Amino acid sequence: MEAALDDALAPERPERLREAMRYSLLAGGKRLRPILCLASCELAGAARSLAMPTAVALEMVHTMSLIHDDLPAMDNDDLRRGRPTNHKVFGDANAILAGDALLCRAFEMVAERSPGVPAERRVQVVAALARAAGAPGLVGGQVVDLESEGKLVGLETLEYIHLHKTGALLEISVTSGAMIAGAPGELVEALRRYARGIGLAFQIIDDILDVTADSATLGKTAGKDLIADKTTYPSLLGLDESRRRADALTTEATQSIEAWGEAAQPLMALASYITARDR
Amino acid sequence: MEAALDDALAPERPERLREAMRYSLLAGGKRLRPILCLASCELAGAARSLAMPTAVALEMVHTMSLIHDDLPAMDNDDLRRGRPTNHKVFGDANAILAGDALLCRAFEMVAERSPGVPAERRVQVVAALARAAGAPGLVGGQVVDLESEGKLVGLETLEYIHLHKTGALLEISVTSGAMIAGAPGELVEALRRYARGIGLAFQIIDDILDVTADSATLGKTAGKDLIADKTTYPSLLGLDESRRRADALTTEATQSIEAWGEAAQPLMALASYITARDR
Repeated sequence: MEAALDDALAPERPERLREAMRYSLLAGGKRLRPILCLASCELAGAARSLAMPTAVALEMVHTMSLIHDDLPAMDNDDLRRGRPTNHKVFGDANAILAGDALLCRAFEMVAERSPGVPAERRVQVVAALARAAGAPGLVGGQVVDLESEGKLVGLETLEYIHLHKTGALLEISVTSGAMIAGAPGELVEALRRYARGIGLAFQIIDDILDVTADSATLGKTAGKDLIADKTTYPSLLGLDESRRRADALTTEATQSIEAWGEAAQPLMALASYITARDR
Repeated sequence: MEAALDDALAPERPERLREAMRYSLLAGGKRLRPILCLASCELAGAARSLAMPTAVALEMVHTMSLIHDDLPAMDNDDLRRGRPTNHKVFGDANAILAGDALLCRAFEMVAERSPGVPAERRVQVVAALARAAGAPGLVGGQVVDLESEGKLVGLETLEYIHLHKTGALLEISVTSGAMIAGAPGELVEALRRYARGIGLAFQIIDDILDVTADSATLGKTAGKDLIADKTTYPSLLGLDESRRRADALTTEATQSIEAWGEAAQPLMALASYITARDR
């Protein structure tokens, strides 16, 4: 995965822009979205290499959202994955532009750098990725998240934020692999349910870790939800109930794909990893 | 064209994001990119309606670039098309996010909202649009433009900036219409030459107008290149030579498509309009 990411930005110009794009794309991280995509492509019976350009595209979209979210105009964060954030190193203008360029490159990856995938499937993934990244997904979630800062919001708004800001991209990460493999609609729908479950569980764990972990382990500023006066699962439900809810969602998620037996094992393991992770 | 743009963002959520997207997308403007796309689709022998979703997408990408360019972190402009810029009305965070959302929606328009266009052509346009908007095009040009501010740059760098910052999107505006119509490679190449000519002419005229027109006519701040200490065609070549160069480029542009006779008339007229415009 790291090699594929490294490869994807090799010929980028101008140099300063390429550096800014690579700085954040190659900064490590869990690579959860690409891995989910490859695992779901394999579950659907195709070689994982078929989904590799899309897997790279998903990490590019994720990286773009981190770069833009960290900007002073938004979350104003100085630390990400244990290193200074993109705008701290390259300046606000280059950080905005590096994000824009990563987003564009992501669509190019899916549309053009996926030989062997029929064009019909590629346009399907482009459209679904565009929705997941845009107003009906990630961007929409971020707008409501920013609007909600410093306000007491209810569970409904909190779930709206997470289903859009984190959930939408996790969902397309899982379903795109299957789409590329030409999976039947029934499998795509089961994977969508799986993705929704782990997506929300993922976010609950994120909220829990913000309270319980330290910055060094997280690689980003711990306790920032509290400082930003953000409503979180622990603040609404308490730590114990939040943990129980994450576990229940993970169980539901794995149940929706267990009918696929052995082939579903990697996605099962990823679901457990999400609930058990400490960063 | 205005109706199609209005239609494209009808169901957008959340409300505040939709407002920000519509504010800039529906702020008037010449609609040059969509019109070029429709004209080239007709020249290639297809109904213009076939290219309408792509025409809308082109205006979305253009609008996104204006919103991001106007940000305080970049050109820090308060006025655009005679109205306060997006971030002045909606704040920096929403302006960044509205731009991101418009970019995503643009790819969705091409990929999914183009029934009747074979998937092969749609992925071709998605990939070309992604390059035109991203690091190899618009974003790359903007990075070099920002780097060059306050410096004396030569004609080569100036042309690099314009071929990327303005030229790339104008080129795909013209070629995408023909791609969607399934035009032969020979026509697409002739249109590419046409687009390069009018693209550079367009930018030279822009530079001239920045010197000779007033803010009220332009609908944006006049003289800002001078204030920002930017190298322009007039500052390098003088006004008369700049004007001559724009005319020569326009003539070359029209010559490259005159073999298509009557059918090329609308694009011929658009080339003359670009050279003669006063805003």
